[in-house]
Amino acid sequence: MGSTEDLDYPQLILQYNSGFLVSKVVFTACELGVFDLLLESGEPLSSDAIAARLGTSTTGMERLLDACVGLKLLAVKLTQVGALYRNTEISNIYLTKSSPKSQYHIMMYYSNTVYLCWHYLADAVREGRNQYERVFGVSSKDPFGAMYRSEEEMLKFMAGQNSVWSICGRDVLAAFDLSPFTHIFDLGGGGGALARECAALYPNSTVTIYDLPKVVQMAKEHFIPPEERQIAFHEGDFFNDSIPEAELYILSKILHDWDDDKCRQLLVKVHKACRPGGGVLLVESLLNEDKSGPLETQLYSMNMLVQTEGKERTAAEYSKLLEAAGFGEIQGERTGKLYDAVLGRK
Amino acid sequence: MGSTEDLDYPQLILQYNSGFLVSKVVFTACELGVFDLLLESGEPLSSDAIAARLGTSTTGMERLLDACVGLKLLAVKLTQVGALYRNTEISNIYLTKSSPKSQYHIMMYYSNTVYLCWHYLADAVREGRNQYERVFGVSSKDPFGAMYRSEEEMLKFMAGQNSVWSICGRDVLAAFDLSPFTHIFDLGGGGGALARECAALYPNSTVTIYDLPKVVQMAKEHFIPPEERQIAFHEGDFFNDSIPEAELYILSKILHDWDDDKCRQLLVKVHKACRPGGGVLLVESLLNEDKSGPLETQLYSMNMLVQTEGKERTAAEYSKLLEAAGFGEIQGERTGKLYDAVLGRK
Repeated sequence: MGSTEDLDYPQLILQYNSGFLVSKVVFTACELGVFDLLLESGEPLSSDAIAARLGTSTTGMERLLDACVGLKLLAVKLTQVGALYRNTEISNIYLTKSSPKSQYHIMMYYSNTVYLCWHYLADAVREGRNQYERVFGVSSKDPFGAMYRSEEEMLKFMAGQNSVWSICGRDVLAAFDLSPFTHIFDLGGGGGALARECAALYPNSTVTIYDLPKVVQMAKEHFIPPEERQIAFHEGDFFNDSIPEAELYILSKILHDWDDDKCRQLLVKVHKACRPGGGVLLVESLLNEDKSGPLETQLYSMNMLVQTEGKERTAAEYSKLLEAAGFGEIQGERTGKLYDAVLGRK
Repeated sequence: MGSTEDLDYPQLILQYNSGFLVSKVVFTACELGVFDLLLESGEPLSSDAIAARLGTSTTGMERLLDACVGLKLLAVKLTQVGALYRNTEISNIYLTKSSPKSQYHIMMYYSNTVYLCWHYLADAVREGRNQYERVFGVSSKDPFGAMYRSEEEMLKFMAGQNSVWSICGRDVLAAFDLSPFTHIFDLGGGGGALARECAALYPNSTVTIYDLPKVVQMAKEHFIPPEERQIAFHEGDFFNDSIPEAELYILSKILHDWDDDKCRQLLVKVHKACRPGGGVLLVESLLNEDKSGPLETQLYSMNMLVQTEGKERTAAEYSKLLEAAGFGEIQGERTGKLYDAVLGRK
């Protein structure tokens, strides 16, 4: 960066230009089922065979596979019968639908929803607000009304969030020893992947997923098997309905959806409900105090502009919000992954 | 890649996921004029000042600037009056409109046209054809009819191609000593940036831009000043109209737009027109023979699927097309940049 070599030829900028091409190649290979087929087949396949099995053109499939080779998501071997493709290990683990760590659902959400919203990034910056109206013709006054504009959209969003916790959930829950808290509420817990990680990591805990009735309904139907005895449900809107007493409240990717006023309003309610000695765990992607990064978090903060009423914040900004609501002994822990943790105590 | 560290946490895949966010941040900062303002101002500015001058929201602008800091396109300094932003050197050179090496126009073309086409990549792979009909409601039977669907679109495309030659033109023209050829035709020469590089590098040459009448018109109006005495024009459709005699024909990013049949058809015409001892210079992004890359070229080949009737090819594939048309002494030269050169002689 900044070397004379870079200044002669803008490798970095060319890479940024191609970013969306890279994303869409990966999303499309996932969507068409390339990685699933190659996992199931158990042997390398030709592009013709893959195209035939997945019902695509051969000319399109061959190029898609070759681009995946360039991205190290597939490996290719030139043989006497032509080129044969197989998954790399990273694809088997993260890009197949059946893997426990599959990122398939978040990719589909990115590809079909977020990609379109971001086409209007310039408008979002000009106007300082989300772009649901422009993109999907739905009112942007209530972001979650817009995000959950159909059962299908809601399901895709919930499944996407669950993918995230399959790779980041354990770290944010292990950032602090939460074993003293046995009665836990996960406010806006959605599809429940984080709640299930919490139950697994803290076997003495009960985790209640508090979410909108239609979300809870969907979670029960699609994501949480009834034999999960550590998981309970509570239907409600945490801004307008009461919040029951508990020892610990998890707010995972909640505050980043809202402006400071709504965050304070919610945290005051949580503080009131919280048992003395209890606490609140914020799970968020933390910005550096000096504005230097992390890049992912800066990009996510732009996404909050495009899709919500909120933003990503620094640890100091979250501390301030927590303190204003009455919480103390505030500690932040970076995990080195996408999401970090901030704990406050009552 | 492939280390156990990568397998524990898919950094690579998360980076691919965010590719489109990165592209759109850069495109949007260019579109809104952030880099132009910071170049003109001559001093670091606050996000409030930038937002005010560019007529955007402050909340959106601050995040956009911070993301550009994460991408090393801006530098930020925390001062007593708050954060102040300035361009990095790479942004001054490549992202400001006024710079001779500006990539602004190709970015706007990518952001407003290519980005939308790529939303339908899965359809393109399924169907094996370009997606103009789905994206813009224009017939895809004639790709250039679709790409040039309005004067404005044509102008944006031509300006975009010119940006490319401002960073890659010199290398592809210097890959071979072209000084023996003084009478040169640039077939499909468009906005003429490559022709002008050629004229500058080979001061004894005359370069005739052969393109559709409306393209030539636009080139004269917007891109080639009349005092450029080494540049001439020829209006025509090289598939349907005659090609005049010359010593060298440049086909720069032409063959990649078409299937093998049309390429052969065009090359046969060029061979017939070519003076004995003359030649043809193909300027294209060359794929590796072993399907391993380069990644950029693999991505471009997908773009040819989405936008044209062609594809990117290996040096051997271009040799074969040239030989079939009667050309010999074929040599390929990689430049290490986006575009390479293949020379054939008659």
